[in-house]
Amino acid sequence: MSAPVELIDVTPRDGLQNEATVLSPTARAELVRRIIATGARRIEAVSFVRDDLVPAMAGAEEVLAGIGPHVGVTIAGLVLNARGMQRAADAGVDEVNFVIPATDAFAQANQNSSVAGLMTELGAAARVAADAAIPLTVTIAVAFGCPFAGVVPPDAVARIAKHVTGSFGVAELALADTIGVATPWQVRETFHAVAAETTVPLRAHFHDTRRTALANVFAALGEGVQRFDASLAGLGGCPFAPGAAGNVAMEDLAWMLDRAELKHGISVSAALEAGRAVAAQLGVAPRSAIAGAGPFPR
Amino acid sequence: MSAPVELIDVTPRDGLQNEATVLSPTARAELVRRIIATGARRIEAVSFVRDDLVPAMAGAEEVLAGIGPHVGVTIAGLVLNARGMQRAADAGVDEVNFVIPATDAFAQANQNSSVAGLMTELGAAARVAADAAIPLTVTIAVAFGCPFAGVVPPDAVARIAKHVTGSFGVAELALADTIGVATPWQVRETFHAVAAETTVPLRAHFHDTRRTALANVFAALGEGVQRFDASLAGLGGCPFAPGAAGNVAMEDLAWMLDRAELKHGISVSAALEAGRAVAAQLGVAPRSAIAGAGPFPR
Repeated sequence: MSAPVELIDVTPRDGLQNEATVLSPTARAELVRRIIATGARRIEAVSFVRDDLVPAMAGAEEVLAGIGPHVGVTIAGLVLNARGMQRAADAGVDEVNFVIPATDAFAQANQNSSVAGLMTELGAAARVAADAAIPLTVTIAVAFGCPFAGVVPPDAVARIAKHVTGSFGVAELALADTIGVATPWQVRETFHAVAAETTVPLRAHFHDTRRTALANVFAALGEGVQRFDASLAGLGGCPFAPGAAGNVAMEDLAWMLDRAELKHGISVSAALEAGRAVAAQLGVAPRSAIAGAGPFPR
Repeated sequence: MSAPVELIDVTPRDGLQNEATVLSPTARAELVRRIIATGARRIEAVSFVRDDLVPAMAGAEEVLAGIGPHVGVTIAGLVLNARGMQRAADAGVDEVNFVIPATDAFAQANQNSSVAGLMTELGAAARVAADAAIPLTVTIAVAFGCPFAGVVPPDAVARIAKHVTGSFGVAELALADTIGVATPWQVRETFHAVAAETTVPLRAHFHDTRRTALANVFAALGEGVQRFDASLAGLGGCPFAPGAAGNVAMEDLAWMLDRAELKHGISVSAALEAGRAVAAQLGVAPRSAIAGAGPFPR
């Protein structure tokens, strides 16, 4: 396994969206610049959702304007529907990530729609993306477990994956363990089932809620997945999973990959420093293991 | 993978040895009885070390006397030298676990000896164990990384494993990630190298210091290892690894195995309850993920 691993930094989006402290668009643009300095070349920086519903994500356009020139770096924005996609296109984001949950119950809670309804939205969004020549990725949320519907079977995810990637010109498909319940066996089985239905590159988005995130990364790598979302200081969370810890911490993941001599381009020490800085801005302690224990060897 | 997994509860030994609050032998015997009620059938309950050096482990004989009859349950004691072995034999423990570090630097710090010197001690201990008909297991400490000597190469561990299991009538060999630095790739490689040198059953002892413990369990299972140490509430630590988190939490590991339908005999809810109780006695918060996030599905 010598090909490079791509680590996508989702701190400014997933990392911030569920925190009590709201950072200004200026502070979020500054955060993106700090993240670029850690070595990240792909960053999910904004979310085109309603400002009144998710105040922490308000002002996506201002964040993008504040980032400024970013040669060689892809700035992605998350969207939940066709309207968000239009905003993303107008704002000139480099890449759009459309979320479609694996279960109707989560689709209803998160996006006030059904999975079928979101497929229609995705079709409309895909046309906007194509017209604007913006690469479109799709993330299947709660792909391993749903707080309302329970465990999600691999074949259910594979069916959605087949539909999504077969119909809408999608550049990449992510499976998200939104509430942090996946096990490495399930990760292996689900990515295997999905890979049988599509040829688009796959990405994994793991939360470390139950300490399985690094195990899940290891299992996904074993299935040929080489793209992983991560968040500085393990920030992040899901509003529908109370008590849930955040995304897998960038510094933990980068450290583990370093020890395995798998190249990924992120500096652990820079990620640690950036993670401490953003955690301090939010008034929380860093949630990464490496922030507490330090790297090894030192 | 349908054969049962054996989870060895090390809470009363590794879980308590590094805590500021010292529990009395009576409280430690009561803890062992609570652990039996979680379903554990093998428990590392005591350590035959000098009371003045490790006050938390003082009174091993009293703990054993306090446990009382325990049909179907194996009560193990840890020893660091031949003198400890003699005490263990006199106390009538069911099984003895002799620790031999992978590096001279750690052997010096932990046991005031060299690896070669401890091999001699192990030989003497093995004769005592054989005379007393007590099964003897050996744990290779810092088998993945040493706070003084750095990363430990798999072939160095395999050499020690070959010597230990070829010379001393050892019933089982454990590899311990004493300071929590192992990665799943390293675990795979090291257990693979050791399995090539010995036919005795292998056990793994992982700390979750850098959140790799469950990944390491997954990797070890893939190498055919089916015996794992764990500690309620993730208690435990190493005096030579400041800031280090404890053992992999029994409730986290049991939960993950439950989700994978791998049988192990521990009740997650009983382990959670027992972990909360012992953490409360110690005046610390439970360090397991499941204590914070709860099992899934609920």
